[in-house]
Amino acid sequence: MAETGARKRRGGGRAGAAARRGSAALEQMPWQIPVNIDRPTEPLTEEGIQAIHEGAMRILEEIGVVFLNPEALGIFKQAGVKVEGELVRMDRDFVMEMVGKAPREFSITPRNPDRTIPLGGNHILFGNVSSPPNYWDMELNKKVAGNREQCRNLLKLTQYFNCIHFAGGYPVEPVDIHASVRHLDVLYDKLTLTDKAMHAYSLGKERVEDVMEMVRIAGGLSHEEFEAKPHMYTNINSTSPLKHDFPMIDGCLRLARRGQAIVVSPFTLAGAMAPVTMAGAVAQSIAESLCAIALFQYVRPGTPCVIGTFTSNVDMKSGAPAFGTPEYMRSTQMTGQMARFYGLPMRSSGVCAANVPDGQAIWETSNSLWAAVQSGTNMVYHAAGWLEGGLIASPEKFIMDCEILQQIERYMQPQISATGPEEIALDAIKEVGNDGHFFGIQHTQDRYAEAFYQPFLSDWRNYEAWEAAGATWTAERAHKLFKEIIADFEEPPMDAAIRGELADFVARRKSEGGAPTDF
Amino acid sequence: MAETGARKRRGGGRAGAAARRGSAALEQMPWQIPVNIDRPTEPLTEEGIQAIHEGAMRILEEIGVVFLNPEALGIFKQAGVKVEGELVRMDRDFVMEMVGKAPREFSITPRNPDRTIPLGGNHILFGNVSSPPNYWDMELNKKVAGNREQCRNLLKLTQYFNCIHFAGGYPVEPVDIHASVRHLDVLYDKLTLTDKAMHAYSLGKERVEDVMEMVRIAGGLSHEEFEAKPHMYTNINSTSPLKHDFPMIDGCLRLARRGQAIVVSPFTLAGAMAPVTMAGAVAQSIAESLCAIALFQYVRPGTPCVIGTFTSNVDMKSGAPAFGTPEYMRSTQMTGQMARFYGLPMRSSGVCAANVPDGQAIWETSNSLWAAVQSGTNMVYHAAGWLEGGLIASPEKFIMDCEILQQIERYMQPQISATGPEEIALDAIKEVGNDGHFFGIQHTQDRYAEAFYQPFLSDWRNYEAWEAAGATWTAERAHKLFKEIIADFEEPPMDAAIRGELADFVARRKSEGGAPTDF
Repeated sequence: MAETGARKRRGGGRAGAAARRGSAALEQMPWQIPVNIDRPTEPLTEEGIQAIHEGAMRILEEIGVVFLNPEALGIFKQAGVKVEGELVRMDRDFVMEMVGKAPREFSITPRNPDRTIPLGGNHILFGNVSSPPNYWDMELNKKVAGNREQCRNLLKLTQYFNCIHFAGGYPVEPVDIHASVRHLDVLYDKLTLTDKAMHAYSLGKERVEDVMEMVRIAGGLSHEEFEAKPHMYTNINSTSPLKHDFPMIDGCLRLARRGQAIVVSPFTLAGAMAPVTMAGAVAQSIAESLCAIALFQYVRPGTPCVIGTFTSNVDMKSGAPAFGTPEYMRSTQMTGQMARFYGLPMRSSGVCAANVPDGQAIWETSNSLWAAVQSGTNMVYHAAGWLEGGLIASPEKFIMDCEILQQIERYMQPQISATGPEEIALDAIKEVGNDGHFFGIQHTQDRYAEAFYQPFLSDWRNYEAWEAAGATWTAERAHKLFKEIIADFEEPPMDAAIRGELADFVARRKSEGGAPTDF
Repeated sequence: MAETGARKRRGGGRAGAAARRGSAALEQMPWQIPVNIDRPTEPLTEEGIQAIHEGAMRILEEIGVVFLNPEALGIFKQAGVKVEGELVRMDRDFVMEMVGKAPREFSITPRNPDRTIPLGGNHILFGNVSSPPNYWDMELNKKVAGNREQCRNLLKLTQYFNCIHFAGGYPVEPVDIHASVRHLDVLYDKLTLTDKAMHAYSLGKERVEDVMEMVRIAGGLSHEEFEAKPHMYTNINSTSPLKHDFPMIDGCLRLARRGQAIVVSPFTLAGAMAPVTMAGAVAQSIAESLCAIALFQYVRPGTPCVIGTFTSNVDMKSGAPAFGTPEYMRSTQMTGQMARFYGLPMRSSGVCAANVPDGQAIWETSNSLWAAVQSGTNMVYHAAGWLEGGLIASPEKFIMDCEILQQIERYMQPQISATGPEEIALDAIKEVGNDGHFFGIQHTQDRYAEAFYQPFLSDWRNYEAWEAAGATWTAERAHKLFKEIIADFEEPPMDAAIRGELADFVARRKSEGGAPTDF
């Protein structure tokens, strides 16, 4: 097994090099771990931070959170926390002591160790859209239920783009696969089509255990090696307001006990599942996160946890969720301040309410992605491919978002604002004087190729050249690239024995019936 | 005249009220002067600021700037500045002493005093697209040379949208009007169709003097009243590298002597008219601005001046200008730091290279508008309507940009992140508990109507409802709104006597031949 692992790792190294070069389809930026060099935008004063903290603590102490999970209730009782029926009320000393045990930073190591991602600190990482039940592309030009081929194509984009650092949930729900075995087929696809950090849905014991086992097999790891550090993660939502359901907590407990990572992202939509005021919605979200993180820290101190935010607002007219709004931006920034206050890595998202990859989709997505940057977010979920408030996945939107993500990666490179003598360039300015231009001079020639961000999707030609080339709008250009990337896609290398072992596992678990579907 | 002015002012007040209500076409946010509450994003260290300052000073001291304006050369000589032929080299003591005389903040009072705009401090103001020679809309679906009707329509949008605070240059160049009299017709249109702060092109004595006179007449002002404070402004570019041409400086001197405001915005495209390194391009831009501002301060100390930035980069492949890039964002932020260092209000822009109002247009524009916010920009030129690097004006893009601008205005409202007891809303959370929702409770009912940003163009319906309503993409929706706004447009009130005086002035100046066209 160790030998197999070593062979796999060499393969991963080659895959890494191929990814850095890019394929024929387009020239992209290399795989990199961006470091957010900006000071966060902080709408809260110190008093504001204290007010939200106090609010969250009083929610946990005075109102309490329902845990629909008997095991969790038993653990809380054992910890001396006040449990009445399913209602758990914990005092702030317990919460803060437990949360203090969570690491400020940790890494997730996927089957290709070159794709290891550091979570926390100043790192900002991007993941693909996760969990839409529907799919839209320009060729279909309609919304359809997701299927396995679409899911596989979106996984190929997830692997292809170097600016996507981790593989979130299913990029579209393949409803053509029976729910009892869907996780087996999709995880087989994910693990063979990508070599990036992997996610398990906390939707029942069988699914979680199967995914952990498949990630272990794909990594060529012994059980001990698997448990020695995080190789994967789960993401859970609470059932706001103030409730955690059975399978989500169950999945987390299973991952925590095996040393894997947990993201807790309450979905507190202001005016619906949370107060209409953003600070109230944030306080409630913090309370819902912290009580779960406290549980996992009690079970296994040091469990790697991420505090997630999904606080947005509803449409005042319809009650529908809105995304990428001014309120969304501020609540994300506020949550960033709270995450730093608690010393936890943070997750937010790239989101929009638009139904197609048009202008609205991009201003809402841009707003949410810049809020991720401004908030000091470490893990940006749904960073590529999301439409209709998460109900649609779109490959065109995926590719458009990757152009934005690459620009954020470039924006983070400190050399843009370097101010050494070579950058101030007095000699070059002197050389050109009052009448020339800088195109031909040596200072320009020496730096030209690397000086500026080079887009793969933006068309910088003038109108006439753009018109002569077909006058295609952004989404159409993205559709063409989508086809090319899928046509040229090469799977990342995987040892044949490991692939066989994975396939055998899937076959065996299918023959056993997969997971129950009565939840 | 005073009585006429007073009557006009009452008219302006009514117009203000009408604008606050919005027309039938859409419900928009009221006219307001946004205050940027965010701490600026600052890529430069203190040493970086000093390095750029040192670079700018050495450019002015050692290389010098050509002024193709004999009057300016004479003034510099009189001031004891070193002048050799047309090359002016000024030492840093002179520059800094003069720049120190410029006000940190000032106001521009247009014909409707309700539209007075404060420039500097934490204010951020938006203006319409200025000066594209071409026009594009969805009905034409092609790029055409601008005409007066298009220009008038874009001026109507400028007036209509409360988030547009000032009227920049011609929103499209109406080339169907002869160049000798174009300024007379367009200024008549601008002054009658809008009541917002007004701009004069510095393109020859006659144009500048005519525009000042028309602004004075429209304001119902005596010459003394006109000169007592800024009622308008001009914006000039240098001829980079390191040159100021005759008419731009001439126009500024004319405005300075009459107490009007000046914006100096070098167009330093890194790799073309400026060093390929962004810090070098910023240093050169700063030098080009400061030497002109120093001149105006010497001529009339306290002349209201704004330091502008138009530093971007070229496309590495074609040499074409790129806009809204990561490099553009950082150079805008760097210039913001320098503007604060010199104590000057700052101008930047809302820009893109895209040819149509598609996804690319919006991510480039969003990047540039967020850079304006992050840099502490006070005056955002081209904030609505710009395409193709400024070669095309588009009404659809104008309306899409206004949706983004409104979101920025809302984002600036501190109540979003208020954290008082009513916002933390512990009682509301207690009331709803672990099983309800917040839709119906009193805390929500009391705040619902004003709680969240309400878009006029974003469509937040689900896919099915959006499809049933015609499945229109953003730009199409904007086109429809454009038609409605123009159909419903009401001119802001203007006293009949003033209107007559303006018309007489235009007729007289036309009969005199307008302005020479041989420059």
